Amino acid sequence: MRPKDLIDTQDFSKAEVLHIINLALALKKCIKHEYFPPLLKNKTLGMIFQQSSTRTRVSFETAMEQLGGHAQYLAPGQIQLGGHETMEDTGRVLSRLTDILMARVDAHETVVKLAECASVPVINGMSDYNHPTQELGDAITMIEHLPCGKCIEDCKIVFVGDATQVCASTMMMATKLGMNFVQFGPKGKQLSEEMQKIGLENCKKSGGSLLITEDEDEALRDADFVYTDVWYGLYNAELSREERLKAFMPKYQVTPQMMKKAAPHVKFLHCLPATRGEEVVDEVLDAEYSIAFDQAENRLTAMRAILVYLLADRMHPDFKEEALHQRLCGALSQIIDV
Amino acid sequence: MRPKDLIDTQDFSKAEVLHIINLALALKKCIKHEYFPPLLKNKTLGMIFQQSSTRTRVSFETAMEQLGGHAQYLAPGQIQLGGHETMEDTGRVLSRLTDILMARVDAHETVVKLAECASVPVINGMSDYNHPTQELGDAITMIEHLPCGKCIEDCKIVFVGDATQVCASTMMMATKLGMNFVQFGPKGKQLSEEMQKIGLENCKKSGGSLLITEDEDEALRDADFVYTDVWYGLYNAELSREERLKAFMPKYQVTPQMMKKAAPHVKFLHCLPATRGEEVVDEVLDAEYSIAFDQAENRLTAMRAILVYLLADRMHPDFKEEALHQRLCGALSQIIDV
Amino acid sequence: MRPKDLIDTQDFSKAEVLHIINLALALKKCIKHEYFPPLLKNKTLGMIFQQSSTRTRVSFETAMEQLGGHAQYLAPGQIQLGGHETMEDTGRVLSRLTDILMARVDAHETVVKLAECASVPVINGMSDYNHPTQELGDAITMIEHLPCGKCIEDCKIVFVGDATQVCASTMMMATKLGMNFVQFGPKGKQLSEEMQKIGLENCKKSGGSLLITEDEDEALRDADFVYTDVWYGLYNAELSREERLKAFMPKYQVTPQMMKKAAPHVKFLHCLPATRGEEVVDEVLDAEYSIAFDQAENRLTAMRAILVYLLADRMHPDFKEEALHQRLCGALSQIIDV
Repeated sequence: MRPKDLIDTQDFSKAEVLHIINLALALKKCIKHEYFPPLLKNKTLGMIFQQSSTRTRVSFETAMEQLGGHAQYLAPGQIQLGGHETMEDTGRVLSRLTDILMARVDAHETVVKLAECASVPVINGMSDYNHPTQELGDAITMIEHLPCGKCIEDCKIVFVGDATQVCASTMMMATKLGMNFVQFGPKGKQLSEEMQKIGLENCKKSGGSLLITEDEDEALRDADFVYTDVWYGLYNAELSREERLKAFMPKYQVTPQMMKKAAPHVKFLHCLPATRGEEVVDEVLDAEYSIAFDQAENRLTAMRAILVYLLADRMHPDFKEEALHQRLCGALSQIIDV
Repeated sequence: MRPKDLIDTQDFSKAEVLHIINLALALKKCIKHEYFPPLLKNKTLGMIFQQSSTRTRVSFETAMEQLGGHAQYLAPGQIQLGGHETMEDTGRVLSRLTDILMARVDAHETVVKLAECASVPVINGMSDYNHPTQELGDAITMIEHLPCGKCIEDCKIVFVGDATQVCASTMMMATKLGMNFVQFGPKGKQLSEEMQKIGLENCKKSGGSLLITEDEDEALRDADFVYTDVWYGLYNAELSREERLKAFMPKYQVTPQMMKKAAPHVKFLHCLPATRGEEVVDEVLDAEYSIAFDQAENRLTAMRAILVYLLADRMHPDFKEEALHQRLCGALSQIIDV
Repeated sequence: MRPKDLIDTQDFSKAEVLHIINLALALKKCIKHEYFPPLLKNKTLGMIFQQSSTRTRVSFETAMEQLGGHAQYLAPGQIQLGGHETMEDTGRVLSRLTDILMARVDAHETVVKLAECASVPVINGMSDYNHPTQELGDAITMIEHLPCGKCIEDCKIVFVGDATQVCASTMMMATKLGMNFVQFGPKGKQLSEEMQKIGLENCKKSGGSLLITEDEDEALRDADFVYTDVWYGLYNAELSREERLKAFMPKYQVTPQMMKKAAPHVKFLHCLPATRGEEVVDEVLDAEYSIAFDQAENRLTAMRAILVYLLADRMHPDFKEEALHQRLCGALSQIIDV
């Protein structure tokens, strides 16, 4: 049985992840050809945000609308979550009033608890632990930009800098897919042992590899993808500019010089927002090999498929899994010069 | 002529109230069977909130979307209501830009005034005086959970604790419908004389009864429904924990012991949010006889009907009252095994 | 080629302005007759607000919904604009996730920059410099209320009081259309020389005229329209009540006495919100000759056309310019007793 929620991609098999990615690519093709399949007609997504957000929020809202549904933005202070009401009761109530929930939370346990008490599907829109919708969007982006003749399992991805939740998420997705993952970051800012253990378990099944190193040459050698994230850490405990520069500058700043050490066809990734001049310089973020803004667009690509996947069992019979695939294929063959 | 607004259920006859309830039940049945009648297509609801809200806000927004319309959330500080513009002018302007308005207000006179100057219908989404959309949702919930062989007019409902606006609203709806209403609460926290007068007037017409008492046995005897609400009072003048425990504990806490004094088939109601361990204990709120979360769902059930009822005259001819009933009945008979 | 954005009506020719106005009037007629053309189906508008707003925000959201699309309200603090992300990067990202953007900004250069870096159309929802969507709504309102036998080019409009951005915008639109524009305001509160230069350039092409004066009789003589705005200035640097009364009272308050000096068929305009008792008295704002609330409604009328105009090239072939006009005309002739 498929998981009710998307809290952690570790709850999904590689096959399930690839299924979601394929669904995402099919829906993207439909919409590019101006066919908006009304798969989420009359469905409502409740969006709970404990932090500000650009990409996650706008992607979810646009995804719901493009597929015929609607998203409600429930900002901090607007609903009584965690104020006069327990998380459990709010989860039970929102399950009666919406069809699916997403939450961007300060603490990972909040979204875990919400999923437990909600009877509708719950999507983790980023926590202090991981960022699964980003993972799926990034996997789509890499698959769209594979080096000529390579499949995703052949690729090497280097995450440069801090072990943020995006770094952890990138590692979990890469090792699940069977990629070779490297974190190039300083001691004290490297993925935890617990996290490494998860990665190594993934590698056993997938054939991927995991390396954490301070050696730039080793890290970058033959890299197909270079990824970085901001240095200031979590919203609630941001490092001062002085502290972060001391920890990462200049060694871990992604520059054209660093990019030259990777494979000639290397692509640059960033989850954004970027602090230009800190973790990355303009010459890299704005380079032709930068696919950071494609990544941003693929947040939306991922959201559509995640929403459809999790709601598939609750859909009108016409839109259930088997019927769905037939309809999409039919629509695609009509519209597209295959 | 039907009232333009829903500010107070006292402006509606019992027949009108039952008409809205029946409409709500019909719409609920349609949607349960995956038929979403597009009765509010292209209609826009402006939602003005002077306080935070979970149930009311989400219910309204979901109701509009399910019926083909849209709700705009106008939070405190986002529009110029009461800032650089008089309430009257804002009401006149929003009447030009939306089809219907709802307001959750600090002071009841604000929503009364808004209704006066707005040319579109205005719905009271709770004030310091009453909570009419809660009343209608609760009436629906009780009708769905009537004791075997009883009609609503035969039932006794006991409201335990503070004379909140929800207590007042429950009393007004119960006495209008012809139920036997009891408030079991301490002196100083009982319904005002003015409010009692309204209830007694209702009873004269409906055959219901009204009692306010500090006698637990008398209050609970043969009760079909037990209802409670929080003890901290209004948002703007909340009692401290110490003050409220002193006023209500332990006598007015709803416990399994208290529930045992009611009829064997008794149901427990709570408008939520609940302060577990204060006005109610977990063993009651989570009991099988608790219908508090059905109540929450029926906020949405009520909203749909209220919106359709108030907009009926402004609808496309195909959706006007008579046509509406025919269409709904037709749709129901097609879809449902009657 | 039509401009990508609506930042300033100066970027549009008179013919283009009239084209948008005609489109607006056609769409208004359709909707008045309960035909809601789904021209913006599946399109998403991202609305960025750096200030609170009633009319602009509600108009945009209602316009999108009425035409089948959806608007996302991105309030201050909710997205990372200008926080952890540069305006340029946010513009590039939102271009990937939405179809069109609008922004109400503190500083005009912000919306200019946003338009430069966004690949989707950007609409200026008011800046400290101008208010182009207000201009178009006001032009529509004046055209709907032309004096008998006059065309817009024959009309005289007097703006009384402070040289706000609405005053500047009114001047730019009036001189572009070929009207006779007068600002009746005290020295120090008059339109800048730069702004006057723009107006005089417009007049050369259009045959209109521009006058700035402190002479009440001269200003009001034969005026077809009298327009005023608040005295407190920009949100971020509001004048105290004492300062503004000293600057404008009593000479520049619009009273029935002042209105009598204009043409007998004069109409009164106000962009709202109004500070009743300051720049205008109740007897004027609530008079039969006041069309201020029609103006508010025509904010919505203008938004519909602006959105359709800017998105026309990005529409489904069925809805592209030529097809669009045919469809609208066909729909109108079917529905309306022409």
